Amino acid sequence: MEATAQEVDAAVRAAHAARDALADRTVRAAFLRSAADELKAAESTLVEVADAETALGPVRLTGELARTCYQLRAFADIVDEGEYLGVVVNHPDDTATPPIPDLRRYKVPLGVVAVYSASNFPFAFSVPGGDTASALAAGCPVVVKAHPDHPALSELVAKVLRRAAARHGIPDGVLGLVHGFEAGVELIKHPLVAAAGFTGSVRGGRALFDAAAARPVPIPFHGELGSLNPVVVTEAAAAERAEAIGAGLAGSMTLGVGQFCVKPGLVLVPAGDAGDGLVKSLTDAVSATDAGVLLDHRMRDNFVAGVAERAALPDVDSPVTPGAGGEHTVSPGFLTVPAARLADGGEHDLLLEECFGPVTVVARYADEGEVRGVLSRLPGNLTATVQLSAEEAAGESAGAAALLAEVTPLAGRVLVNGWPTGVAVAAAQQHGGPYPATTSTSTSVGGTAIERWLRPVAYQGVPEALLPVELRDDNPLGLPRRFNGVLER
Amino acid sequence: MEATAQEVDAAVRAAHAARDALADRTVRAAFLRSAADELKAAESTLVEVADAETALGPVRLTGELARTCYQLRAFADIVDEGEYLGVVVNHPDDTATPPIPDLRRYKVPLGVVAVYSASNFPFAFSVPGGDTASALAAGCPVVVKAHPDHPALSELVAKVLRRAAARHGIPDGVLGLVHGFEAGVELIKHPLVAAAGFTGSVRGGRALFDAAAARPVPIPFHGELGSLNPVVVTEAAAAERAEAIGAGLAGSMTLGVGQFCVKPGLVLVPAGDAGDGLVKSLTDAVSATDAGVLLDHRMRDNFVAGVAERAALPDVDSPVTPGAGGEHTVSPGFLTVPAARLADGGEHDLLLEECFGPVTVVARYADEGEVRGVLSRLPGNLTATVQLSAEEAAGESAGAAALLAEVTPLAGRVLVNGWPTGVAVAAAQQHGGPYPATTSTSTSVGGTAIERWLRPVAYQGVPEALLPVELRDDNPLGLPRRFNGVLER
Repeated sequence: MEATAQEVDAAVRAAHAARDALADRTVRAAFLRSAADELKAAESTLVEVADAETALGPVRLTGELARTCYQLRAFADIVDEGEYLGVVVNHPDDTATPPIPDLRRYKVPLGVVAVYSASNFPFAFSVPGGDTASALAAGCPVVVKAHPDHPALSELVAKVLRRAAARHGIPDGVLGLVHGFEAGVELIKHPLVAAAGFTGSVRGGRALFDAAAARPVPIPFHGELGSLNPVVVTEAAAAERAEAIGAGLAGSMTLGVGQFCVKPGLVLVPAGDAGDGLVKSLTDAVSATDAGVLLDHRMRDNFVAGVAERAALPDVDSPVTPGAGGEHTVSPGFLTVPAARLADGGEHDLLLEECFGPVTVVARYADEGEVRGVLSRLPGNLTATVQLSAEEAAGESAGAAALLAEVTPLAGRVLVNGWPTGVAVAAAQQHGGPYPATTSTSTSVGGTAIERWLRPVAYQGVPEALLPVELRDDNPLGLPRRFNGVLER
Repeated sequence: MEATAQEVDAAVRAAHAARDALADRTVRAAFLRSAADELKAAESTLVEVADAETALGPVRLTGELARTCYQLRAFADIVDEGEYLGVVVNHPDDTATPPIPDLRRYKVPLGVVAVYSASNFPFAFSVPGGDTASALAAGCPVVVKAHPDHPALSELVAKVLRRAAARHGIPDGVLGLVHGFEAGVELIKHPLVAAAGFTGSVRGGRALFDAAAARPVPIPFHGELGSLNPVVVTEAAAAERAEAIGAGLAGSMTLGVGQFCVKPGLVLVPAGDAGDGLVKSLTDAVSATDAGVLLDHRMRDNFVAGVAERAALPDVDSPVTPGAGGEHTVSPGFLTVPAARLADGGEHDLLLEECFGPVTVVARYADEGEVRGVLSRLPGNLTATVQLSAEEAAGESAGAAALLAEVTPLAGRVLVNGWPTGVAVAAAQQHGGPYPATTSTSTSVGGTAIERWLRPVAYQGVPEALLPVELRDDNPLGLPRRFNGVLER
């Protein structure tokens, strides 16, 4: 089943040959909507196959498929609107220094995009997921490297997407699919691959990032690698609603058996009674949470070993012991540690690394200085969350604003009084953050994810008759644009 | 004069400490305008020092300084407008799948930017150039690695810029300056450097790109490395105006003694009488062009050696022999070769590499197939130019549209009936292209150059009182934005 180098080459060449079939924006938008239709039509089969391979359960998988279809339609709307093209027109201007000639700029597709599927989202971050949807929306054919946790589903989804493509005269090659670790390495090195999207581990993602950068012609590599997703609970918030925060945290960290990239993995909780109450609430809620099945045995082994290694550190306690919950399952739990132990850069640094699965680390702090000390030692994150009291949230405390300013450099998404799990598909979404959260400044979810697969081209002195229609003065497509300095919408 | 590792560290730390002083957009815009004022006020001294170090002459240098001041003011206008912040607001929407919470996104500065100066533009692509101007506009302090061809000018300009900063209470550290090759390497590796801009050679740029990618925390590296800037003259264009094209080409390729990154380095000219006429015109015009002084001796040596190596290839002629023009000068010239020799991938590949200085290669083609053959072998470019007849430019020939479509994948800027030298500072400008033209999909000239130094952050569920003012519903700053799907201007 693993693709040979020749098979990878054939998939990339077929994708490259499909570029022209994607060139028309109207056709692309219709294709994306048909893809959503076809996936929805195949729902029962897809969910069954997905559940057999991932054990994520039909409820979650049906929801994830609905999200995936919504995402495909959202990108169709983005293609129709055309703002993403970034059209800018400058008529000649002799008063500028130097004078400006007739210049018109918009964005064109980069070419074939390699997409590396995630284990934990067999739909939303895999074959039909955000990377694929945004790349197709941009006009880029895709070759997906399937995740080994759901190969049959990947094949099935690829067929469904190709059926949708065929309805618009787009050849099968527009969506290639390859299996196997070596195939993934071949793919990133292929001269006709122009960019890549990745969701997965730091180790795997960094290796591919390095390979992308080392090519004779380096290519953009948009990888989402890992995130601790810190949460800070203020003294006042803990005093106000310790129980609710403990319960909310339990729900977020155990959702999907803790297999979300935005799982809160480090929670700063005040020492003292209010914080004790929070830990008590968390203890109750996590204890009442069932054991679950992780995506594969390797993950289960890593979780069990990772938890054991962390729990064995000095001054680390396990109010609810996470770990093996049975032959195939794992049981959720959490660890506690004095925040002061995280400030010194020793063996406790392990607690600042993501541990995939239903576990979080509660670090108890004595004062704001300890909070700052821990935050200053964190790597980049997808999210950072602050739990505030009603008074702090109303802006009646200087400390809350300062805390928000302090966590902003750490993350791509900053939340107040919410939980990071649940990533909305929206124009304002940012699913990406400082390394290792992502290897670029881009997002992999939301409307602007399309920007990753485009590059600008300017036309100078090109007569109207030869201009791309998007750049003509009369703007027959009604595109939003910047026209001689004025934003036209 | 070369900075030690300790001095580089001190410069970066001082820049890092200056971030808060740049946080206010109004202050930044005023600072950029003051920088332009102060540079203009120091014009006579700056031009004198620049001419002593570069021999580019006062006329060119005065013009380049004016361009640099214009560019600083243009970025001040961009900061004032605020569209570059990319503000997007989504109110909660329960009809979305999954539901959308309150989400608000804009862009924040990345942090300290390292700028590597170019030899050939001591103002426009050096200490006060586009990289510095766009980084400061984005809110990023800068540490410049001075080019060894103009160290005194670099120091002088840095002082002028710091004087402008001081007028707005911004500390000197906002513009660091270091000298020396090793200092440049230290700079790219510094943990507090968040991004880099570079203009220079493929060898130097690639080494720094590789170092940026190999960091424990990789950073964006926006490098402009090299470009051949191909020109295609159609049969009909040559038949129509061989003389004008030959003269125009001579002017473009010898401008600034051929030391422009957009110098046309390869020109596809038809075989036969019309093409002969073009070569004759080129011969006359280049023969009448004076010898000039290159920026430094290393460049002169490289030019003389590079030309000699190319001229010695089989079937290469030199109608006007370029090379040493005296003890310090070089004389312009050009080489000719049958286009068929460029299609086979042998030793003639050398002619497809940039040769810095006043030389171009005229490849004579027998038919359109040979044009396509040569184009298919070209690396990425900053520009690609097509010379068309009036009839072709009017869109009355299918071939012209096809030719434009064929050169678009090769370049960031596509010109018709113009010459690539002269890069306007404009919103629609794109000065960047497929590798090795640039190491990213960005531009280093024009309004969108600011995008290189920003990353998006989304705020979820953040109460109005704690939101950055740019993201508030009532939009007190009047920023262009996407508000619940509607583009507001």
